[in-house]
Amino acid sequence: MTPKKPKSENSIVDIAKALGISPATVSRALNNNLRISEATRARVKEMAKEMGYRHNSMASSLRNRRSNIIGLIVPRISMYFHVFFITSLQRQLQAAGYNLMICQSNDSVSVEKELANTLYSARVDALVVSLTLYTENIAHFDGFLRQGIPLVFYDRVPTRRTEAYVIKGDDYRGGLLAGNHLIQAGCQRIAYISGPLSCSIYQERTRGFVDSLAKHHIPLRQEWIYYHELTAENAWDSLRKLFEGDIIPDGLFAANDTTAIAAVAFARERGIAIPDELKIVGYSNDPRAAIITPAITSIEQYPNDMADKVAETLINALQHRHTPSPNTIGEPLICPVDLVRRMTT
Amino acid sequence: MTPKKPKSENSIVDIAKALGISPATVSRALNNNLRISEATRARVKEMAKEMGYRHNSMASSLRNRRSNIIGLIVPRISMYFHVFFITSLQRQLQAAGYNLMICQSNDSVSVEKELANTLYSARVDALVVSLTLYTENIAHFDGFLRQGIPLVFYDRVPTRRTEAYVIKGDDYRGGLLAGNHLIQAGCQRIAYISGPLSCSIYQERTRGFVDSLAKHHIPLRQEWIYYHELTAENAWDSLRKLFEGDIIPDGLFAANDTTAIAAVAFARERGIAIPDELKIVGYSNDPRAAIITPAITSIEQYPNDMADKVAETLINALQHRHTPSPNTIGEPLICPVDLVRRMTT
Repeated sequence: MTPKKPKSENSIVDIAKALGISPATVSRALNNNLRISEATRARVKEMAKEMGYRHNSMASSLRNRRSNIIGLIVPRISMYFHVFFITSLQRQLQAAGYNLMICQSNDSVSVEKELANTLYSARVDALVVSLTLYTENIAHFDGFLRQGIPLVFYDRVPTRRTEAYVIKGDDYRGGLLAGNHLIQAGCQRIAYISGPLSCSIYQERTRGFVDSLAKHHIPLRQEWIYYHELTAENAWDSLRKLFEGDIIPDGLFAANDTTAIAAVAFARERGIAIPDELKIVGYSNDPRAAIITPAITSIEQYPNDMADKVAETLINALQHRHTPSPNTIGEPLICPVDLVRRMTT
Repeated sequence: MTPKKPKSENSIVDIAKALGISPATVSRALNNNLRISEATRARVKEMAKEMGYRHNSMASSLRNRRSNIIGLIVPRISMYFHVFFITSLQRQLQAAGYNLMICQSNDSVSVEKELANTLYSARVDALVVSLTLYTENIAHFDGFLRQGIPLVFYDRVPTRRTEAYVIKGDDYRGGLLAGNHLIQAGCQRIAYISGPLSCSIYQERTRGFVDSLAKHHIPLRQEWIYYHELTAENAWDSLRKLFEGDIIPDGLFAANDTTAIAAVAFARERGIAIPDELKIVGYSNDPRAAIITPAITSIEQYPNDMADKVAETLINALQHRHTPSPNTIGEPLICPVDLVRRMTT
């Protein structure tokens, strides 16, 4: 059995023919023109529905330029931080009458560009973006700014000034807290596994971590710093190299929890005692960090609070309210982070 | 600073004015009409781009009825099974030139209905759906079938016959495997925590589990069966009640891994030894099931394989290929499941 061919779509003319009235009457009835009797309006709408006529779609969108769709481009929905953020954002947007369409860039700049074009063409009312690990040029979002379509970057934001709204976690402070905590716990030889520095969050976490070490006169060893995509496989590779030499680390700051979880498994396999021989701090407070044994100390980013700020900013922008928005264009809004202490430190 | 008001959008007439040529020439140039010189076509396209003219959007969609967008409605992106499925599906659709737009119903039938309408109006080329826990009537998807737009249900599928494509896991066999495994491991008093029976997957898992017990003459105790939304909180409530009485279970089949993980935590708190005093089988093989101590025996559903089947079905349907599709309309395609044995049994 082969799939059905799409039927040619019914138009106002087809509805008019079916009811034996003029297309103008059909059009007026569908637009709730009061010159048309209520009975006729009801009959027309009934027939339009029966014939699968798509009234509230393109034509209506072309007219009032509203799709009630908010687009969202996220690196990966396999990251818990984004899942919590999206779930909370969607709840609030839905309450305000908007539907959220979620697209994944999979950390590919070319996919991100294509999705920006697709969502622009789909006439989203606003766009929310967390950038790929490698997005440095953000010109593919310029069309939104030119058309005055609200554009909000969150979490992974442009590293240069933009006319869009910017809402991000305090990644500098996160890096600082992680470094300070490991040093206060007695670590002297601290390794660091980070994402690529083309990405704002890793740039900031690295800055915070490096500042913390400098402040406490703890040396940074170049061969103990790794930058990669922070997958479990990459983490395992880096850990193997870290524990190859004569001098091995007694502390690890992992810039995501996937890496911290891999480090716990690695230490178990190698018989390295946690926290006695190796202390670990992760990042994001992934639910997995709390259920593994030993449970992992991590940096909490409060994704629900960040979603509140993004929702408030979007709804203010969309409704052109003159009350102050939690974020004004061009000035980043920075959300707090905290260290959650567990068994790895 | 208040957000910018949207500018009125530039039309073909505006582009014509800016270039001092006729609107007809602009339109022909944008449509690559060879009557227009290459130089003019390039000038028009350049100006259209500069002015943010949205050519490839609505007008083009109205003409050739293709958005190259595939819509997807999923209960929650916090469920790992769906995350794996989506990531794999998206990779294949992207390779075939389609973008995937993901929407969450959050297990609300009214949200699911609204999303179906929104995606219909957004003129998706096809729709992929995993139903809410409570969707019994699927009339809100009829518009897609009437228009010949490919519609694929996966995982949580309609419990009644439909003209759409249906691709699902072998949930009956999953329930049977879980029951058999607990019985072979020596359990005599087996409790069961399930999702609501309005949902196809829980209906089937329950049927399989009940058949397994019947086959082995193990009694089913009504007071040991719970049906709810399978959150950690609900699981905790059910577990408390299960361990209140004089006779307590020695086995538990949890119809999702969130419930199985809650059971491991509950047993730890109560000092119930796993697997000696209580054996647990979960469902879905969530990555958390493998990292918790003790690691949890679970049913693997191979979400990547299910995504392959859905992608193949979609691409065949969209390209009207006459090669046999992995799924023909009306006959469900059932994907295999396996039991992954770990430390809880």
